[in-house]
Amino acid sequence: MPILVTAMFTFPLGADAALLPRTAALTEAYHELLAANQERLARWEPWATQPLTPDGTRSFLEASGHAWLAGTEFPVAIAVPAGDRWQLAGSAGLRISAYSQSAEGGYWIDAAFEGRGLVTRAMTALLDQAFGPLGLARVTLHTEVANQRSRALAARLGFTEEGVHRQAISFPGGRRDEVAYGLLAAEWLTRRAS
Amino acid sequence: MPILVTAMFTFPLGADAALLPRTAALTEAYHELLAANQERLARWEPWATQPLTPDGTRSFLEASGHAWLAGTEFPVAIAVPAGDRWQLAGSAGLRISAYSQSAEGGYWIDAAFEGRGLVTRAMTALLDQAFGPLGLARVTLHTEVANQRSRALAARLGFTEEGVHRQAISFPGGRRDEVAYGLLAAEWLTRRAS
Amino acid sequence: MPILVTAMFTFPLGADAALLPRTAALTEAYHELLAANQERLARWEPWATQPLTPDGTRSFLEASGHAWLAGTEFPVAIAVPAGDRWQLAGSAGLRISAYSQSAEGGYWIDAAFEGRGLVTRAMTALLDQAFGPLGLARVTLHTEVANQRSRALAARLGFTEEGVHRQAISFPGGRRDEVAYGLLAAEWLTRRAS
Amino acid sequence: MPILVTAMFTFPLGADAALLPRTAALTEAYHELLAANQERLARWEPWATQPLTPDGTRSFLEASGHAWLAGTEFPVAIAVPAGDRWQLAGSAGLRISAYSQSAEGGYWIDAAFEGRGLVTRAMTALLDQAFGPLGLARVTLHTEVANQRSRALAARLGFTEEGVHRQAISFPGGRRDEVAYGLLAAEWLTRRAS
Amino acid sequence: MPILVTAMFTFPLGADAALLPRTAALTEAYHELLAANQERLARWEPWATQPLTPDGTRSFLEASGHAWLAGTEFPVAIAVPAGDRWQLAGSAGLRISAYSQSAEGGYWIDAAFEGRGLVTRAMTALLDQAFGPLGLARVTLHTEVANQRSRALAARLGFTEEGVHRQAISFPGGRRDEVAYGLLAAEWLTRRAS
Amino acid sequence: MPILVTAMFTFPLGADAALLPRTAALTEAYHELLAANQERLARWEPWATQPLTPDGTRSFLEASGHAWLAGTEFPVAIAVPAGDRWQLAGSAGLRISAYSQSAEGGYWIDAAFEGRGLVTRAMTALLDQAFGPLGLARVTLHTEVANQRSRALAARLGFTEEGVHRQAISFPGGRRDEVAYGLLAAEWLTRRAS
Repeated sequence: MPILVTAMFTFPLGADAALLPRTAALTEAYHELLAANQERLARWEPWATQPLTPDGTRSFLEASGHAWLAGTEFPVAIAVPAGDRWQLAGSAGLRISAYSQSAEGGYWIDAAFEGRGLVTRAMTALLDQAFGPLGLARVTLHTEVANQRSRALAARLGFTEEGVHRQAISFPGGRRDEVAYGLLAAEWLTRRAS
Repeated sequence: MPILVTAMFTFPLGADAALLPRTAALTEAYHELLAANQERLARWEPWATQPLTPDGTRSFLEASGHAWLAGTEFPVAIAVPAGDRWQLAGSAGLRISAYSQSAEGGYWIDAAFEGRGLVTRAMTALLDQAFGPLGLARVTLHTEVANQRSRALAARLGFTEEGVHRQAISFPGGRRDEVAYGLLAAEWLTRRAS
Repeated sequence: MPILVTAMFTFPLGADAALLPRTAALTEAYHELLAANQERLARWEPWATQPLTPDGTRSFLEASGHAWLAGTEFPVAIAVPAGDRWQLAGSAGLRISAYSQSAEGGYWIDAAFEGRGLVTRAMTALLDQAFGPLGLARVTLHTEVANQRSRALAARLGFTEEGVHRQAISFPGGRRDEVAYGLLAAEWLTRRAS
Repeated sequence: MPILVTAMFTFPLGADAALLPRTAALTEAYHELLAANQERLARWEPWATQPLTPDGTRSFLEASGHAWLAGTEFPVAIAVPAGDRWQLAGSAGLRISAYSQSAEGGYWIDAAFEGRGLVTRAMTALLDQAFGPLGLARVTLHTEVANQRSRALAARLGFTEEGVHRQAISFPGGRRDEVAYGLLAAEWLTRRAS
Repeated sequence: MPILVTAMFTFPLGADAALLPRTAALTEAYHELLAANQERLARWEPWATQPLTPDGTRSFLEASGHAWLAGTEFPVAIAVPAGDRWQLAGSAGLRISAYSQSAEGGYWIDAAFEGRGLVTRAMTALLDQAFGPLGLARVTLHTEVANQRSRALAARLGFTEEGVHRQAISFPGGRRDEVAYGLLAAEWLTRRAS
Repeated sequence: MPILVTAMFTFPLGADAALLPRTAALTEAYHELLAANQERLARWEPWATQPLTPDGTRSFLEASGHAWLAGTEFPVAIAVPAGDRWQLAGSAGLRISAYSQSAEGGYWIDAAFEGRGLVTRAMTALLDQAFGPLGLARVTLHTEVANQRSRALAARLGFTEEGVHRQAISFPGGRRDEVAYGLLAAEWLTRRAS
């Protein structure tokens, strides 16, 4: 039985899911979800190869909340309804560079929630924010060359492949190549208008 | 033409209004609304008798945002839809004392938006949070004895009058009496269940 | 044999007692006094139901000292002479709100020192400060409804009962009602002049 | 008509004077006294050759207060009674080095209050603190070689001349020699006992 | 006549130049050099399109110094001897990511000092540090696609072109494409060994 | 086999030694050297009588680095070449008082490196900085009266004995007398010119 959370403020992703602000208020549930997915995520994400602790998760979420208030990040949790509460299903976010008016996206989803289009819907909502109210000019995604699922998502969202950064990702067992994707404001707005 | 805001995360108050997180992202619009209402609010609120500045408003909203993350406040803006954006209509909030598991409520509304029940709806949402997820035991309201509109709201929400604090409010022109209201968790939950 | 303290700066309360600035310089002696009275104070003070540690006492007294310098508190220790040193007998203080030009008083006394009028003398000295140099307009006291000794002190000092805040105090075993007292500058000055 | 101050906590220096904690609560009066004596003090004290501002005085006194709480300084103001208030007459203090269990003394007095033994009484009180409750082993004084008044005070208090630091003091018009005095705990305690 | 600087610690780049730690000690000279080159640098560097102030330069250099101590940056100034002092000629640096064991390089040179190979020598020294004592696995360079001089330097140092980030650089007059270069530890060490 | 360090920036002391910036980058090697010399240094330096920890050494070196950037200290390590790295041999530094345009020197050397003139060369380099680029007017040295080796160094560098501070140094086993030395800018410049 997963830990459920309450949230006053939400962003609906259709009737069966929503985004919540990703802050320290979610610590217990978020840590549980991270722990359940750590081994799986460690296949693609270097941070997931490090030991997890509840205090570390709390610090991470406190930093996310403060970065959100400061306008340097847009951190969200993906959640599904569970009675009058929410069950966490994944995480998404944008790291914003005011200097270059761009952002870098990121996301992960619990194994049990793959296949429902939750990440696509979450990233679509974040890209609408990025190219709408936030007024950004460009969003990037970086993923390991071998991560086909993530590459398919980038393609589905309309991103263009812009290069391969050789051995740019550091894993305990060695370094791996990273593929870089870019999406421009005009591209997204055209896509959403069509 | 008022300054409009965007907000990813909202709490709907029916179809014609919503609560938004009250953070520094709202600074320009909130300052405009404050300035438009300052003279009117200065009749009842000592803080409104002080000079307003955009920097002061920003600092206030930054503090609100950080207090929200820290769990010591629950600060919201009351807004109405304006196309795909929001027009601010008022402010509400709870200051939370973890030590005594209680909170103190506050609110104000723009003159043009009085009479639609917006404050009642906003405070109802906040009391649901206070006595639900936040697990508080008691919420208080304090208002000037002569503020009939505010006293009527307290009564309508089910608060009990618990005393008159003599000359407890400091105005530039002199001190005034304050009436204290209290509402207990059991009272609210009974009321909501009926 | 209690821990004794030295203090350069004092405020005499007659020949047999004095007030000392309540700062971290008193940590060891204050902690000893707190520990000796904790069980007794826990009958009336929620903070006394929590575990005490020397580090916690030091932090509390450091905060008291800084609040005194900042003008937001007036924290004193009640002491009796012991040779060329002092023995601590109790604690008193005002929490000052510059915004409303008011303060809230508090006090406790060691069991062995009850009945000598030490708290009455300490609070008289603090009220002289509050309504004299500090220029406050109002001082409040809050105590549990059943705390007859504290209520008698409030009455003896000329405070007026202004209401009962239902279930406003949170104890481990349940919540209790609190009675609120207020005293105005004009009332105190008249009383002292007569 | 000088600015008067109030002070709850004092240390009597006989019937006609007292020491007060030197904190930001004294800012206006202390700044007035500094300004009145600046030209005179600039003869002997390099700091007095710099421009004075009320903000600078407040910062200095805030730092004094915090250093007192931290145990790194013992800053006092010398005052004389003026009705139910106090008129400031001078300043004294110890800078404490816990590392070497020693302190360095300093003092200055308003021109109108010279000749009453106020500085001698103030320094005697501070040396009693230094070699009593503070448990220090040594106190030093440094003054310009040509400052006969200050050297006479050092001698009167029982200090021993320990050397001349050549050109150790930096004045706008050039550097000057400084004489160093030392006093040991045993010397002071013997002196006070006789 | 340019402002000259002194520096105790240096890294020689042959007999006619050296690297100096780039810290706030260089503020006046560095600001002068920046101001002389701003218009020229604004052709390729978005930061150079912003107004320069001495306070801004000082803050930038203070941040550089602290980032150096923290190990997150390796900031150097390029200098040529001028008697027993140094004349500043340019700037270079690495921003280090411990997370990915990589760094990003940057550099600029005063117009009068182009053509002497100073940037090549400075970057060679920094790459020796990066792939030697710092133990990094990868260094990147990013430059505008049209910046032929910078691209030639990257090629000369052995970097490989890894992609074009479309419209990744934000200039006041519009966005421009950026080319990304990467260099791996093994590549550098082979090159230096041959 | 001692821990070796790398350093990009150095100040040569002839062909067989150099000064390095004394920062946290040296922590492991510096701690090892301190530990090896602690018992020996405890004969003359009170700080060496305290327990050493790697964390304490790191904090000390972090503070040194920040003091260097702030211009309040000039902290260096004395090192000898060991292949393409450096072996630490000792420590030297100046604590700078901008207020009095003076500094206090300090130094210690590993037992195995005594007798090569390393401390003399290091202090000469620091005095050249002090009386050259730093523009100081006076440098002092303080050492225990019985420390003949340190007194001989002071004399060799041209310092003048200016007094004996009785019992100024606090050791666990009792207090000891300290001799004070001073050196003026004109004296040093004359000496270096001859």
